[in-house]
Amino acid sequence: MSLPFALSTLARGMRPSPIRELFPLIRRPGMISFAGGLPAPDAFPVEAFAACADVLAARGREVLQYGASEGWPELREVLLERMTAHLGRPVAGDELLVTTGSQQALDLLARGILDPGDTVVVEGPTYPGALHSLRNVGARFAAVPSDGDGMLVDALPEVVAAVERETGKRPRLVYVVPDFANPTGACLTLARRRRLVELAAALGIPVLEDDPYGRVRFRGEALPAVTALAAGSPWVLYAGSFSKVLAPGVRLGWLVGPPELVRAMVMLRQGSDLCPPTVTQALVAEYCRRGHLEGHLERVIATYRVRAEAMQRALRAELPEGAASWREPDGGFFHWLRFPGRDATALFRSAVAQGVAFVPGVAFYPELDEQVGGRVVDAEHARLAFTFADEAGIVEGCRRLARALAE
Amino acid sequence: MSLPFALSTLARGMRPSPIRELFPLIRRPGMISFAGGLPAPDAFPVEAFAACADVLAARGREVLQYGASEGWPELREVLLERMTAHLGRPVAGDELLVTTGSQQALDLLARGILDPGDTVVVEGPTYPGALHSLRNVGARFAAVPSDGDGMLVDALPEVVAAVERETGKRPRLVYVVPDFANPTGACLTLARRRRLVELAAALGIPVLEDDPYGRVRFRGEALPAVTALAAGSPWVLYAGSFSKVLAPGVRLGWLVGPPELVRAMVMLRQGSDLCPPTVTQALVAEYCRRGHLEGHLERVIATYRVRAEAMQRALRAELPEGAASWREPDGGFFHWLRFPGRDATALFRSAVAQGVAFVPGVAFYPELDEQVGGRVVDAEHARLAFTFADEAGIVEGCRRLARALAE
Repeated sequence: MSLPFALSTLARGMRPSPIRELFPLIRRPGMISFAGGLPAPDAFPVEAFAACADVLAARGREVLQYGASEGWPELREVLLERMTAHLGRPVAGDELLVTTGSQQALDLLARGILDPGDTVVVEGPTYPGALHSLRNVGARFAAVPSDGDGMLVDALPEVVAAVERETGKRPRLVYVVPDFANPTGACLTLARRRRLVELAAALGIPVLEDDPYGRVRFRGEALPAVTALAAGSPWVLYAGSFSKVLAPGVRLGWLVGPPELVRAMVMLRQGSDLCPPTVTQALVAEYCRRGHLEGHLERVIATYRVRAEAMQRALRAELPEGAASWREPDGGFFHWLRFPGRDATALFRSAVAQGVAFVPGVAFYPELDEQVGGRVVDAEHARLAFTFADEAGIVEGCRRLARALAE
Repeated sequence: MSLPFALSTLARGMRPSPIRELFPLIRRPGMISFAGGLPAPDAFPVEAFAACADVLAARGREVLQYGASEGWPELREVLLERMTAHLGRPVAGDELLVTTGSQQALDLLARGILDPGDTVVVEGPTYPGALHSLRNVGARFAAVPSDGDGMLVDALPEVVAAVERETGKRPRLVYVVPDFANPTGACLTLARRRRLVELAAALGIPVLEDDPYGRVRFRGEALPAVTALAAGSPWVLYAGSFSKVLAPGVRLGWLVGPPELVRAMVMLRQGSDLCPPTVTQALVAEYCRRGHLEGHLERVIATYRVRAEAMQRALRAELPEGAASWREPDGGFFHWLRFPGRDATALFRSAVAQGVAFVPGVAFYPELDEQVGGRVVDAEHARLAFTFADEAGIVEGCRRLARALAE
């Protein structure tokens, strides 16, 4: 039966993303998947996390009750301490909001600062889930190209000017993943980070630093967060997540931002889901308070280093000379490959026929009719996650990819 | 430092609800609170729930991973079975969405079917959290008065006509809590339920039946859900919640609706928080599969029966003759008192000075400038939750209320 009443303009305008369309293909039996950005299930801290469940018995009357919309006090303490260290300044309670994954931080931020039709500046390519959140409030997109060192920040003023020429309005947000970006794996250089902080205030556009991968570094020195360089400036906001450093199944993230913005987001969240689940917050707070997180992170990093290197070797060994180029990642989840002269979506179809899946680059760009201020497209790239398959799977997957390339 | 960038039109238009404003007063030490609609913490199934945490160890690799946006399969099975029994027809998988509390069902439904400025028909008075969700998408409200038997459903066509006259557009949704409504505690009669089903199709307006309290009945026979009477009609949607029958801290609810609507809500949810937490879903699925829920519900009902009767007796014994009138509730969480000739908000201030809190009735109405199609106001009522305070607290709270009335 077809729906007898109308969906909203927003719902009618939703488009299935190219990734969703490919999901049934990826799920075929025997498929080796480099597609989803999923953590390695064998690297989850199953025992230590399950042991923390004694908090459900010890503090059940509080844990099972409604909680504060801002988050469970013990988890907030853990996060304030970590953020104070990470951002290099005392982070106050009224700057922090616990969210249902960092996805909800984006959702509430989008609802808090964007009107339908407003433009958001993103990296081209960028995280499709961010595009999705922002689409949910009717945003349009201006893509700033990036290279192996992240967003070409110096191009930002010209992109902003082009948006203003085309729409008559300044963009309302810059969205960036400075550490081990999804999908490129790139880290924004220190010089570009500093420039981004300057430009946020100079252009009058807030920047959201989305940082799910920053701690997953297996080589080289960490750079300061853009938010740390901003030293308390209200122009730079920070979103963090437990999904990649602990487990996505807890669906917990957070946002650090100016108190007035956090208050607006708290109000929006009260209409959205009232409060984050106290059960998961108590479990994660307990896990962190028992000192498990840092040790676990070391194991995660060790696992991903091995897998990234295995993929690196297998790509070099299996792919035909000159068929693909890429930059070796220092952390994060992804290899970002360019297949010169090939259409990566067509290659995807050959690859799944061979039994290996990845995500074609086109999925990481706003669609052309959503873009303003100069259009950015890219058909030659593909994202390969090295985190989910084990080493044997990685080697076999790269062999299958080579067969698809040879077709 | 004030925020240097603009909030969205939505965020700027948010108003602190009268309830939020009163919260600091309610939190004073020694306060006896009849205000929040909180379950009794001593009625939480702490041990049985905590024991289910062995699923975190046994199935950790799945439980800690990302899950399906539609919900964790085991929890979906539990819900499909329960909904099939409750709605009296086989409920299919594509009709069900697991949500972060039923609050998120409302949020996603509002985003899926309402455009800014659309009107929603609500009971006057109604659940403030629903008003909040709907406000978050820019809704306006038409209030249909209710009596001790729930919404005056026969008034619905005239209210709809009045909205059309005033706005030029038909309302897009009817929101109703047919069982033990918040705040009135009323149950919609069978005749009104049937009429509501007819009117939904006849007027072409979908009805959301929000049912957090239906199972919390301590007297009398349950009436069939409006959605059950609708027998699969796409005009009636159902929202359920574990908050009142198990625990709000799990933040789990669900929606049953036509597949096309559910698909749209799944798409919106992917941009909103990706998927519900697998950790809480696995715990609740396990709790239900071990057969704990029905036994626990009996204990909850027994607890609330005792407290409702204690409040009933204490109100009769302590309040001056004629100072208040109310209808004895058969279930749910609330007594809804009328104080003839008194302003309940003024009375609230006297009451908190005496050390007892409740929620003045004005909090359960859309504000006047949000209402269309005839304005509904009510200054004389107050909602007293009998679930949270224990029996001694209930008696003492009613004594304090009597002192406030005597002032």
